[in-house]
Amino acid sequence: MKLLSFVAAGRVSYGALREDGVVDLGARLPGFPDLLGVLRAQALAQAEAAAQTASVDHDLADLTLLPVIPNPGKIVCAGLNYLAHRLEGKHKPESAVPTLFLRLPQSQVGHGQPMVCPAESEQFDFEAELAVVIGRAGRRIPVEQALSHVAGMSCYNDGSVRDWQLATPQWTPGKNFPATGAFGPWLVTADELPPESALSLACRLNGREMQRTTTDLMMFSTAELISFISTFTALEPGDVIVTGTPGGVGLRRDPPVWMRHGDVVEVEIEGIGTLRNTVVKEGQAR
Amino acid sequence: MKLLSFVAAGRVSYGALREDGVVDLGARLPGFPDLLGVLRAQALAQAEAAAQTASVDHDLADLTLLPVIPNPGKIVCAGLNYLAHRLEGKHKPESAVPTLFLRLPQSQVGHGQPMVCPAESEQFDFEAELAVVIGRAGRRIPVEQALSHVAGMSCYNDGSVRDWQLATPQWTPGKNFPATGAFGPWLVTADELPPESALSLACRLNGREMQRTTTDLMMFSTAELISFISTFTALEPGDVIVTGTPGGVGLRRDPPVWMRHGDVVEVEIEGIGTLRNTVVKEGQAR
Repeated sequence: MKLLSFVAAGRVSYGALREDGVVDLGARLPGFPDLLGVLRAQALAQAEAAAQTASVDHDLADLTLLPVIPNPGKIVCAGLNYLAHRLEGKHKPESAVPTLFLRLPQSQVGHGQPMVCPAESEQFDFEAELAVVIGRAGRRIPVEQALSHVAGMSCYNDGSVRDWQLATPQWTPGKNFPATGAFGPWLVTADELPPESALSLACRLNGREMQRTTTDLMMFSTAELISFISTFTALEPGDVIVTGTPGGVGLRRDPPVWMRHGDVVEVEIEGIGTLRNTVVKEGQAR
Repeated sequence: MKLLSFVAAGRVSYGALREDGVVDLGARLPGFPDLLGVLRAQALAQAEAAAQTASVDHDLADLTLLPVIPNPGKIVCAGLNYLAHRLEGKHKPESAVPTLFLRLPQSQVGHGQPMVCPAESEQFDFEAELAVVIGRAGRRIPVEQALSHVAGMSCYNDGSVRDWQLATPQWTPGKNFPATGAFGPWLVTADELPPESALSLACRLNGREMQRTTTDLMMFSTAELISFISTFTALEPGDVIVTGTPGGVGLRRDPPVWMRHGDVVEVEIEGIGTLRNTVVKEGQAR
């Protein structure tokens, strides 16, 4: 099942994507106001039943997509989780544990919406990543059980304002400007795409390939990230883990490549789809 | 006015502290389920009116205190914001901008509750800090207007699991174990204690003074922190800014001093009061 959050005719809702269109689950499952509510209630089966039996309500093209989970309890992002990206930044090739930072939900933006380069910077960079959404709560989850806690996966563009990220040792400011973290287009549930899959992942800027990897090259796998993160904080349904970007980011190119007003950036992951966003420079006419 | 969040006879509520006891505002302002609700509704004046006219409902000693704001939208913490703490860690004496990281609300604990050293570490350190709670939303707030966005101030013990904090370049894991961030005992509103005050701040471990400063020695003042943070993310009522710790942390002592099972740690700030917590080693009997 493919689940998505959207605005239809001014109303915030969520639904399931089928070949013939989108079933509006928000209108059909009144007990659950949003996708986070479905996950917290462990109601994916209910959502699936409704998605299969109902007739479609919307054309996908008519919807304004929101971040897959607009309001997660937390967004934990892995940095430096592919060797090629570690090496291009002159980091040590190995690390005993994952490098982690937090994004705020307010920094997210949906598929098809503009990613915004803030007025304060010209150094807006792309980072194509696999996003994992938690379906079942847990603390100190063993690696071998970790994938059973996954609800599904999506694409993430962990857009980074590099000068604000790297001005101090902590990356927080450059990872939290509004509309810099693109998340979508939809969640592919774990029954349809097993979380242990080795998936090809690519980033394109104006059609030119900038990043390419397969997700089995992550230094800390999805299962290892879930286990490690759940050691220091309880994972809850709807929590998002963004698993890190491969080599090829704009910052490490010579000369650097920044995303500019009017650019189109895409993150494509095998079995999920393509997250596509235009880039807007804040204050410039769209 | 002094505002606090608590559990009374099994019921979560919040109230105002007077000399004769605590007025239960949760029972009197049914439109606002918690202190965050009061702040979001800009209803401090309503709370004050109720606090002044009602009779008290609880003895302070009968309450189990919660973090002042148990569920803030975000907790932005400044690191390395006093020169003495920068120097003891061999950091450069100056920084062009504040060093910032995020805590999750789940990592907080109230006054009088145990701060928990996780089973995974022996390196649990204290960090006495001034906490500032936002009362009015804003983005790109100019420094000269910043203090008008403050609802009030409290004490914070930014308890840090040092080996988990310093294992990678990003501090997130060591700052987010449950019950490591003590926040209390109460919020002193800005009308009672102006946010520009130079306040003495001290940390004591088992009665021995470990840290002492005045808050005017912050490298980035409260106003500057608010202005900087609001540049990259919109501040909302109830958001918490933790303003950094002075010199004297346990990590930088020779030999290092860690908080151990049975210790009592106190953060005292002039005009606010004393945040006191026992320390519990996870898994050991209390």
